[in-house]
Amino acid sequence: MSVITITGAGMMGSAMSVPASDNGHEVRIVGTPLDRDIIDRAKKDGYHLTLQQKLPCGIRYYQPEELTEALDDCDLLIGGVSSFGVEWFGNEVLPKIPKSLPVLSITKGLHARPDGSMCAFPDYLSSKPGCAGLSLNAVGGPCISFELAQRHHTLVAFCGHDPATLTHIRQLLATDYYHIDLSEDVLGIETAVAMKNAYALGVSLAIGLAEAKSSAGCPEEYNPQAALFAQSTREIYRLLSLLGCDTYETLYGAGDLYVTVFGGRTRRLGILLGSGLTFLQASEKLKGTTLESVAITKTVACALMKLERDGRADTKQFPLLMHIYRLICGETTAMPPWEAFI
Amino acid sequence: MSVITITGAGMMGSAMSVPASDNGHEVRIVGTPLDRDIIDRAKKDGYHLTLQQKLPCGIRYYQPEELTEALDDCDLLIGGVSSFGVEWFGNEVLPKIPKSLPVLSITKGLHARPDGSMCAFPDYLSSKPGCAGLSLNAVGGPCISFELAQRHHTLVAFCGHDPATLTHIRQLLATDYYHIDLSEDVLGIETAVAMKNAYALGVSLAIGLAEAKSSAGCPEEYNPQAALFAQSTREIYRLLSLLGCDTYETLYGAGDLYVTVFGGRTRRLGILLGSGLTFLQASEKLKGTTLESVAITKTVACALMKLERDGRADTKQFPLLMHIYRLICGETTAMPPWEAFI
Repeated sequence: MSVITITGAGMMGSAMSVPASDNGHEVRIVGTPLDRDIIDRAKKDGYHLTLQQKLPCGIRYYQPEELTEALDDCDLLIGGVSSFGVEWFGNEVLPKIPKSLPVLSITKGLHARPDGSMCAFPDYLSSKPGCAGLSLNAVGGPCISFELAQRHHTLVAFCGHDPATLTHIRQLLATDYYHIDLSEDVLGIETAVAMKNAYALGVSLAIGLAEAKSSAGCPEEYNPQAALFAQSTREIYRLLSLLGCDTYETLYGAGDLYVTVFGGRTRRLGILLGSGLTFLQASEKLKGTTLESVAITKTVACALMKLERDGRADTKQFPLLMHIYRLICGETTAMPPWEAFI
Repeated sequence: MSVITITGAGMMGSAMSVPASDNGHEVRIVGTPLDRDIIDRAKKDGYHLTLQQKLPCGIRYYQPEELTEALDDCDLLIGGVSSFGVEWFGNEVLPKIPKSLPVLSITKGLHARPDGSMCAFPDYLSSKPGCAGLSLNAVGGPCISFELAQRHHTLVAFCGHDPATLTHIRQLLATDYYHIDLSEDVLGIETAVAMKNAYALGVSLAIGLAEAKSSAGCPEEYNPQAALFAQSTREIYRLLSLLGCDTYETLYGAGDLYVTVFGGRTRRLGILLGSGLTFLQASEKLKGTTLESVAITKTVACALMKLERDGRADTKQFPLLMHIYRLICGETTAMPPWEAFI
C-alpha cells in the first residue's frame, strides 16, 4: 500500500481517487482555496458535490491549510487542478515536496513564453522557483471525470521524461477499467490533448448553427461537425509538426476531442456561439464556469501570431483555430471559413 | 452546362445529384438491377424512396437497360454503387464508356489480392477487362448522404492520379455547401475512409456493452467509446504505414469515423453485437441491409493474416480490427481486448 495525495478537489482530480482507492492505497484529497465547500461536505460523508456521487470509503479530505499534513509520507502526488490553478500548484504545493516524490498532473493546457514558443505544463512548472529536479509527469487522453469515477473503461496515456517513473506510477493506478499507455513525448501528448478544448468548441459551433436555422434541440447535423472534426485533427497535426513533435500524438488529441464534443462547458459555449450569441452574451450565460477552451485558444492563437511575425509560423495553416479566436474576440460571426480550410 | 450521369440509385449516389443539379448540370440517375423500385417511383414524381425526399427538378431517371441512353454525350460519370456493386459497375458499365469520360466513384472499400496485398477500388477497376486507360477517381471524407441531399455543409476529398482531372471534377460539383479537397494519394485516402466502416462497428460496441449492463437506450458511456475511437485511428495509421501511404490520410478516416458512429447500419450492428447478440442473431435483425462494415473487416483482417504468414505484417498491431473479425466469426464475445491495445 502506498499513500497517494491529490491536490485540487475538482471533478477530474477527485475522480482519480477511485482507481487509486481500488488499488488499495491510502488516498488523501486536498482542496484548493476554491474547493472549501467540496472538502467540507466530503469530510462529513464522502459525498462529492460536483461529481455528485460518494467517493470510496477511507479517503481523507484536507483544506489547503492542512496541506503539509496531507503530504506527509506521501508516495505519489497527483496535481488535480485546472489550468487556472497551475500557478497555485507551482507556487504553493510543488516547492514544499521532496525531490524524490513523483508528481502526476492532470492539468491540460500549454504555457506560451513571451516570444511565442510554447511548452507543456510539466516543463513550465519545473522552471519555477523551488521546482527544479522534480519528477513532473502528466496524463493525456480521453477521460470524462464522472465516467472514470463510475469505473467505465478509460484509456489514457501517462507521459514523462523517465520511463521507470512512468511504469511505477502506472502500477500504482492501473485497474481493470483504467488502462494506461506510457509515452516520453510530453510536449506532443500535452499539446494534442490541450488543443482538444479549443477544437471541441469549434466542432460544437455546428450544433449551434443548426439550432439557429431551426430551433434549440433540433436534430444535429453531422456532416458539418465531422468536417470541423477532421479540420481540427489536421490543425493539431500541423501544430505538433511546428513544435517538432511526433505527429502520431495527433491521435491522442482525436480521442480526447471525440469525448469532449459530447458534453460539458466547452460544448455549451460552442453551441451558444454557433447559435448567434456574442462571446460576452455566452459567457454571461455560463457565469461561474471556468473556460479552458477560451484560455487555450487565446494562448495558442496569440503565440502563433507572434511566431508568424517572426516568420516562424503561418496562421493560414490554422484557419479554424484563428476563426475561434476571432469569434471569441468579437471580430467575426460563427459560420466557419469553409473555403479557408486546408 | 455539362451532363453528369450517376450509376447506382442508392442513397449516396443519388445524393450527389443535389450538388450536381445546383451547378446547373443535366443530371441522369441510372439504377442498378437492385434499384428498380427507386427508379420507378422517381420517374413518377422525383421522390427518392430511401433518401425519403424529393430530388431536384429536372433530373432524369433510367433503369439499367436504359444505360446506353443515359451515358450518351455524358461529361462525368459518377459511380454510385456500394462495394457490393463494384463488380457490376466494373463489368457492365465501365467497359461501355469512352476513355475520355472521367469517372468519380463514391464506393468505399478495398480490394485484396490472393497474396494479401490490397488496392483501392479505382486501381482494382482499372485492371478489369475493357477498363485500362480510364480516368478513375474517388471520393473520401465524411458525408452522410441525406445530409448532403439537404445541403448541409460537407467537406470531402476527391482523389485520383491526375490533378487536372480532379480540378475539373471539383469545378463541376463544388457548391457553397459541398466543399472539396483534392489529393493524389488514392490508396491512402481510400484505405483510411474504407476502414471507418470496420472501426465504427468497433466504437459502437461500447454503446451495446453499456446497454447490456443497464438497458437499451441508457445514457452512453463516452470514455470507452473514445478509447475505441482513438485505438481505431491508431490502427488506421498503422495500416496506412504498412501499405506505404502517407499517414496524414489517417485524419480523413478520423472525420469519416466520427460521422459513421452517429447513425446507420454499422452503428446498429455494433450496438447489437455489444449488447450480447451473436453475429448471426444480429444479422437476422438487420435482414436486408448491406453490411459494408463486415465486408471490409473480413477483407482486411484476412489480408493481414496472409501477410503475417509471409512475415510482412503483425496482426498484434491491429488488436481492435482482429477483435471485430473474431466477433463476426463467433470466436469471441464483445468486450474489447483492452490490455492488447497499443
